[in-house]
Amino acid sequence: MTHAEHAVTVEAPVELVWQILLDVRGYAGIFPPTRAVDLLEESERHQLARLHVDVGEEAQSWVSRRDIDAELRVITYQQVETAPIVGRMGGEWRAFALGAERTQLVLTHDFATREPIDGQVAGRYTFEEADRMLHAAVERNSVADLEAVKAESERRVRQPVDAP
Amino acid sequence: MTHAEHAVTVEAPVELVWQILLDVRGYAGIFPPTRAVDLLEESERHQLARLHVDVGEEAQSWVSRRDIDAELRVITYQQVETAPIVGRMGGEWRAFALGAERTQLVLTHDFATREPIDGQVAGRYTFEEADRMLHAAVERNSVADLEAVKAESERRVRQPVDAP
Repeated sequence: MTHAEHAVTVEAPVELVWQILLDVRGYAGIFPPTRAVDLLEESERHQLARLHVDVGEEAQSWVSRRDIDAELRVITYQQVETAPIVGRMGGEWRAFALGAERTQLVLTHDFATREPIDGQVAGRYTFEEADRMLHAAVERNSVADLEAVKAESERRVRQPVDAP
Repeated sequence: MTHAEHAVTVEAPVELVWQILLDVRGYAGIFPPTRAVDLLEESERHQLARLHVDVGEEAQSWVSRRDIDAELRVITYQQVETAPIVGRMGGEWRAFALGAERTQLVLTHDFATREPIDGQVAGRYTFEEADRMLHAAVERNSVADLEAVKAESERRVRQPVDAP
Protein backbone atom coordinates (compact mmCIF):
# COMPACT_ATOMS: atom_id res chain seq x y z
CA MET A 1 0.00 0.00 0.00
CA THR A 2 1.27 3.46 -0.88
CA HIS A 3 0.37 6.52 1.18
CA ALA A 4 0.50 9.96 -0.43
CA GLU A 5 -0.43 13.44 0.80
CA HIS A 6 -0.95 16.57 -1.26
CA ALA A 7 -1.78 20.05 -0.03
CA VAL A 8 -2.92 23.42 -1.29
CA THR A 9 -3.79 26.74 0.34
CA VAL A 10 -7.23 28.08 -0.55
CA GLU A 11 -8.09 31.76 -0.24
CA ALA A 12 -11.54 31.05 1.16
CA PRO A 13 -13.02 30.37 4.62
CA VAL A 14 -12.93 26.75 5.74
CA GLU A 15 -16.74 26.47 5.97
CA LEU A 16 -17.12 27.37 2.29
CA VAL A 17 -14.48 24.83 1.24
CA TRP A 18 -16.12 22.20 3.46
CA GLN A 19 -19.51 22.72 1.79
CA ILE A 20 -17.92 22.16 -1.63
CA LEU A 21 -16.25 18.95 -0.43
CA LEU A 22 -19.55 17.67 1.00
CA ASP A 23 -21.53 18.24 -2.19
CA VAL A 24 -20.57 15.07 -4.06
CA ARG A 25 -23.37 15.68 -6.61
CA GLY A 26 -21.62 18.94 -7.49
CA TYR A 27 -18.38 17.13 -8.37
CA ALA A 28 -19.38 16.75 -12.00
CA GLY A 29 -19.41 20.55 -12.26
CA ILE A 30 -16.03 21.00 -10.56
CA PHE A 31 -13.76 18.15 -11.65
CA PRO A 32 -13.54 18.14 -15.47
CA PRO A 33 -12.92 14.36 -15.84
CA THR A 34 -16.05 13.59 -13.77
CA ARG A 35 -19.01 13.31 -16.15
CA ALA A 36 -21.77 12.37 -13.73
CA VAL A 37 -22.39 11.31 -10.15
CA ASP A 38 -25.23 9.02 -9.00
CA LEU A 39 -25.86 9.41 -5.29
CA LEU A 40 -26.89 5.92 -4.15
CA GLU A 41 -27.19 6.55 -0.38
CA GLU A 42 -26.83 9.54 1.90
CA SER A 43 -26.96 10.31 5.62
CA GLU A 44 -25.44 12.95 7.88
CA ARG A 45 -22.45 10.66 8.32
CA HIS A 46 -21.97 8.99 4.95
CA GLN A 47 -22.54 9.01 1.20
CA LEU A 48 -22.42 6.21 -1.33
CA ALA A 49 -21.97 7.41 -4.90
CA ARG A 50 -21.21 6.04 -8.34
CA LEU A 51 -18.80 8.29 -10.21
CA HIS A 52 -18.55 8.26 -14.00
CA VAL A 53 -15.09 9.52 -14.91
CA ASP A 54 -13.01 9.90 -18.08
CA VAL A 55 -9.69 8.16 -17.45
CA GLY A 56 -7.45 8.97 -20.38
CA GLU A 57 -9.52 8.10 -23.45
CA GLU A 58 -11.76 5.72 -21.58
CA ALA A 59 -15.01 6.18 -19.65
CA GLN A 60 -14.80 4.33 -16.33
CA SER A 61 -17.04 4.21 -13.31
CA TRP A 62 -16.69 3.11 -9.71
CA VAL A 63 -18.59 3.27 -6.44
CA SER A 64 -17.12 5.33 -3.65
CA ARG A 65 -18.16 5.35 0.00
CA ARG A 66 -17.54 8.60 1.87
CA ASP A 67 -17.64 8.83 5.67
CA ILE A 68 -18.11 12.33 6.97
CA ASP A 69 -16.55 13.70 10.17
CA ALA A 70 -18.03 17.19 10.29
CA GLU A 71 -16.26 18.07 13.52
CA LEU A 72 -12.76 17.42 12.16
CA ARG A 73 -13.86 18.41 8.64
CA VAL A 74 -12.53 15.15 7.23
CA ILE A 75 -14.18 13.01 4.55
CA THR A 76 -12.78 9.49 4.39
CA TYR A 77 -13.39 7.95 0.97
CA GLN A 78 -13.01 4.38 -0.10
CA GLN A 79 -13.68 2.94 -3.53
CA VAL A 80 -16.04 0.03 -2.88
CA GLU A 81 -15.87 -1.09 -6.46
CA THR A 82 -12.62 -0.06 -8.07
CA ALA A 83 -11.39 0.87 -11.53
CA PRO A 84 -9.80 -2.01 -13.55
CA ILE A 85 -6.15 -1.53 -12.53
CA VAL A 86 -6.91 -0.55 -8.91
CA GLY A 87 -6.72 -3.07 -6.06
CA ARG A 88 -7.47 -0.57 -3.34
CA MET A 89 -8.12 3.16 -3.39
CA GLY A 90 -9.03 5.24 -0.40
CA GLY A 91 -7.95 8.30 1.51
CA GLU A 92 -9.13 11.52 3.07
CA TRP A 93 -10.16 15.02 2.17
CA ARG A 94 -9.19 17.31 5.06
CA ALA A 95 -9.98 21.01 5.48
CA PHE A 96 -8.31 23.13 8.20
CA ALA A 97 -8.96 26.75 9.06
CA LEU A 98 -5.85 28.87 8.44
CA GLY A 99 -7.23 31.97 10.12
CA ALA A 100 -10.72 33.21 9.18
CA GLU A 101 -10.20 33.71 5.46
CA ARG A 102 -7.93 30.89 4.34
CA THR A 103 -8.06 27.11 4.33
CA GLN A 104 -5.40 24.43 4.31
CA LEU A 105 -6.79 21.72 2.07
CA VAL A 106 -5.16 18.28 2.14
CA LEU A 107 -5.94 15.21 0.05
CA THR A 108 -4.50 11.84 1.02
CA HIS A 109 -4.45 8.57 -0.90
CA ASP A 110 -3.87 5.02 0.31
CA PHE A 111 -3.76 2.82 -2.72
CA ALA A 112 -2.54 -0.42 -4.22
CA THR A 113 -2.42 -1.70 -7.77
CA ARG A 114 -4.59 -4.70 -8.52
CA GLU A 115 -2.86 -8.07 -8.28
CA PRO A 116 -2.22 -9.61 -11.70
CA ILE A 117 -4.17 -12.62 -12.95
CA ASP A 118 -2.09 -14.90 -15.21
CA GLY A 119 0.61 -12.19 -15.10
CA GLN A 120 -1.68 -9.43 -16.29
CA VAL A 121 -3.61 -6.59 -14.68
CA ALA A 122 -6.94 -5.73 -16.26
CA GLY A 123 -6.14 -8.31 -18.94
CA ARG A 124 -3.51 -6.20 -20.67
CA TYR A 125 -0.81 -4.68 -18.45
CA THR A 126 2.13 -6.16 -16.59
CA PHE A 127 2.00 -5.39 -12.86
CA GLU A 128 4.90 -2.91 -13.28
CA GLU A 129 3.07 -1.05 -16.07
CA ALA A 130 -0.17 -0.89 -14.12
CA ASP A 131 1.65 0.18 -10.94
CA ARG A 132 3.50 2.95 -12.77
CA MET A 133 0.24 4.13 -14.40
CA LEU A 134 -1.58 4.19 -11.05
CA HIS A 135 1.18 6.12 -9.25
CA ALA A 136 1.25 8.67 -12.08
CA ALA A 137 -2.55 8.97 -12.07
CA VAL A 138 -2.68 9.57 -8.30
CA GLU A 139 0.00 12.27 -8.58
CA ARG A 140 -1.74 13.95 -11.54
CA ASN A 141 -5.24 13.70 -10.09
CA SER A 142 -4.19 14.93 -6.65
CA VAL A 143 -2.83 18.14 -8.09
CA ALA A 144 -5.81 18.55 -10.44
CA ASP A 145 -8.45 17.80 -7.77
CA LEU A 146 -6.93 20.16 -5.21
CA GLU A 147 -6.65 22.90 -7.83
CA ALA A 148 -10.27 22.33 -8.87
CA VAL A 149 -11.59 22.70 -5.29
CA LYS A 150 -9.34 25.73 -4.78
CA ALA A 151 -10.56 27.39 -8.01
CA GLU A 152 -14.25 26.76 -7.25
CA SER A 153 -13.86 27.97 -3.64
CA GLU A 154 -12.11 31.16 -4.68
CA ARG A 155 -14.67 31.74 -7.46
CA ARG A 156 -17.45 31.60 -4.85
CA VAL A 157 -15.61 34.08 -2.61
CA ARG A 158 -15.52 36.51 -5.53
CA GLN A 159 -19.11 35.74 -6.57
CA PRO A 160 -21.24 34.16 -3.84
CA VAL A 161 -23.68 31.58 -5.26
CA ASP A 162 -26.63 32.97 -3.31
CA ALA A 163 -26.04 36.52 -4.56
CA PRO A 164 -29.05 38.01 -6.39
CA MET B 1 8.59 32.71 -7.89
CA THR B 2 7.60 29.10 -7.36
CA HIS B 3 5.16 28.06 -4.63
CA ALA B 4 5.23 24.49 -3.30
CA GLU B 5 3.35 22.72 -0.51
CA HIS B 6 4.18 19.40 1.10
CA ALA B 7 2.26 17.60 3.83
CA VAL B 8 2.58 14.72 6.25
CA THR B 9 0.40 13.24 8.99
CA VAL B 10 2.11 12.98 12.37
CA GLU B 11 0.90 10.52 15.03
CA ALA B 12 1.42 13.04 17.83
CA PRO B 13 -0.62 15.85 19.41
CA VAL B 14 -0.30 19.24 17.72
CA GLU B 15 1.19 20.91 20.81
CA LEU B 16 4.10 18.45 20.84
CA VAL B 17 4.78 18.99 17.13
CA TRP B 18 4.55 22.75 17.61
CA GLN B 19 7.17 22.70 20.37
CA ILE B 20 9.57 20.84 18.07
CA LEU B 21 9.02 23.37 15.29
CA LEU B 22 9.64 26.28 17.68
CA ASP B 23 12.93 24.91 18.98
CA VAL B 24 15.22 26.10 16.20
CA ARG B 25 18.30 25.30 18.32
CA GLY B 26 17.16 21.69 18.36
CA TYR B 27 17.17 21.51 14.55
CA ALA B 28 20.79 20.32 14.46
CA GLY B 29 19.66 17.22 16.35
CA ILE B 30 16.68 16.54 14.11
CA PHE B 31 17.65 17.40 10.54
CA PRO B 32 20.76 15.38 9.60
CA PRO B 33 22.14 17.92 7.09
CA THR B 34 22.00 20.71 9.71
CA ARG B 35 25.34 20.74 11.56
CA ALA B 36 24.80 23.69 13.89
CA VAL B 37 22.44 26.58 14.59
CA ASP B 38 23.46 29.96 16.03
CA LEU B 39 20.48 31.78 17.52
CA LEU B 40 21.20 35.46 16.83
CA GLU B 41 17.96 36.99 18.14
CA GLU B 42 14.84 35.69 19.83
CA SER B 43 11.50 37.03 21.07
CA GLU B 44 8.02 35.57 21.60
CA ARG B 45 7.23 36.54 18.03
CA HIS B 46 10.45 35.94 16.09
CA GLN B 47 13.80 34.22 15.83
CA LEU B 48 16.87 35.08 13.80
CA ALA B 49 19.24 32.16 13.31
CA ARG B 50 22.29 31.20 11.29
CA LEU B 51 22.05 27.64 10.04
CA HIS B 52 25.13 25.64 9.05
CA VAL B 53 24.01 22.97 6.61
CA ASP B 54 25.65 20.32 4.44
CA VAL B 55 24.36 20.83 0.90
CA GLY B 56 25.59 17.88 -1.15
CA GLU B 57 29.34 17.76 -0.48
CA GLU B 58 29.56 21.37 0.56
CA ALA B 59 29.13 23.14 3.89
CA GLN B 60 26.93 26.20 3.46
CA SER B 61 25.37 28.63 5.87
CA TRP B 62 22.59 31.19 5.75
CA VAL B 63 20.60 33.41 8.07
CA SER B 64 16.90 32.71 8.45
CA ARG B 65 14.29 34.94 10.06
CA ARG B 66 11.31 33.11 11.57
CA ASP B 67 8.08 34.90 12.52
CA ILE B 68 5.94 32.99 14.98
CA ASP B 69 2.14 32.98 14.99
CA ALA B 70 1.42 30.83 18.04
CA GLU B 71 -2.34 31.18 17.66
CA LEU B 72 -2.43 29.74 14.12
CA ARG B 73 0.63 27.57 14.84
CA VAL B 74 2.40 28.94 11.78
CA ILE B 75 6.10 29.82 11.53
CA THR B 76 6.89 32.01 8.54
CA TYR B 77 10.56 31.70 7.58
CA GLN B 78 12.57 33.81 5.23
CA GLN B 79 16.24 33.43 4.37
CA VAL B 80 17.70 36.88 5.00
CA GLU B 81 21.03 35.85 3.57
CA THR B 82 20.64 33.08 1.03
CA ALA B 83 22.70 30.16 -0.21
CA PRO B 84 24.75 30.82 -3.40
CA ILE B 85 22.21 29.68 -6.02
CA VAL B 86 19.15 31.03 -4.17
CA GLY B 87 17.58 34.38 -5.02
CA ARG B 88 14.74 34.09 -2.56
CA MET B 89 13.72 31.37 -0.14
CA GLY B 90 10.84 31.59 2.27
CA GLY B 91 7.71 29.78 3.31
CA GLU B 92 5.76 28.47 6.24
CA TRP B 93 5.69 25.62 8.71
CA ARG B 94 2.06 24.95 9.64
CA ALA B 95 0.71 22.54 12.27
CA PHE B 96 -3.00 21.68 12.51
CA ALA B 97 -4.75 19.50 15.08
CA LEU B 98 -6.26 16.43 13.42
CA GLY B 99 -8.18 15.36 16.49
CA ALA B 100 -6.41 15.13 19.86
CA GLU B 101 -3.69 12.65 18.94
CA ARG B 102 -2.70 13.49 15.36
CA THR B 103 -1.28 16.50 13.55
CA GLN B 104 -1.42 17.63 9.96
CA LEU B 105 1.98 19.12 9.28
CA VAL B 106 2.48 21.28 6.18
CA LEU B 107 5.65 22.89 4.85
CA THR B 108 5.43 25.53 2.13
CA HIS B 109 8.19 27.10 0.03
CA ASP B 110 8.19 30.28 -2.00
CA PHE B 111 11.46 30.43 -3.84
CA ALA B 112 13.37 31.78 -6.80
CA THR B 113 16.75 30.92 -8.25
CA ARG B 114 19.36 33.66 -8.11
CA GLU B 115 19.63 35.79 -11.23
CA PRO B 116 22.76 35.04 -13.23
CA ILE B 117 25.71 37.46 -13.39
CA ASP B 118 27.52 37.35 -16.74
CA GLY B 119 25.35 34.33 -17.62
CA GLN B 120 26.31 32.37 -14.52
CA VAL B 121 24.72 31.63 -11.15
CA ALA B 122 27.16 31.33 -8.23
CA GLY B 123 29.99 31.67 -10.75
CA ARG B 124 29.57 28.23 -12.24
CA TYR B 125 26.04 27.22 -13.29
CA THR B 126 23.79 28.29 -16.12
CA PHE B 127 20.46 29.63 -14.87
CA GLU B 128 18.71 26.48 -16.11
CA GLU B 129 21.14 24.24 -14.23
CA ALA B 130 20.81 26.24 -11.02
CA ASP B 131 17.02 26.39 -11.37
CA ARG B 132 16.77 22.62 -11.85
CA MET B 133 19.08 22.03 -8.87
CA LEU B 134 17.03 24.33 -6.64
CA HIS B 135 13.69 22.77 -7.60
CA ALA B 136 15.12 19.30 -6.94
CA ALA B 137 16.59 20.43 -3.60
CA VAL B 138 13.28 21.91 -2.43
CA GLU B 139 11.44 18.70 -3.34
CA ARG B 140 14.04 16.50 -1.65
CA ASN B 141 14.37 18.67 1.47
CA SER B 142 10.62 19.09 1.90
CA VAL B 143 10.12 15.35 2.10
CA ALA B 144 13.18 14.88 4.33
CA ASP B 145 12.32 17.77 6.68
CA LEU B 146 8.70 16.68 7.14
CA GLU B 147 9.79 13.10 7.77
CA ALA B 148 12.38 14.32 10.30
CA VAL B 149 9.80 16.30 12.32
CA LYS B 150 7.37 13.38 12.09
CA ALA B 151 9.99 10.88 13.29
CA GLU B 152 11.11 13.08 16.21
CA SER B 153 7.49 13.82 17.24
CA GLU B 154 6.51 10.16 17.19
CA ARG B 155 9.70 9.21 19.05
CA ARG B 156 8.72 11.64 21.83
CA VAL B 157 5.21 10.18 22.00
CA ARG B 158 6.74 6.76 22.58
CA GLN B 159 9.39 8.13 24.97
CA PRO B 160 8.55 11.52 26.49
CA VAL B 161 11.67 13.71 26.91
CA ASP B 162 10.83 14.58 30.51
CA ALA B 163 10.46 10.95 31.53
CA PRO B 164 12.83 9.87 34.32
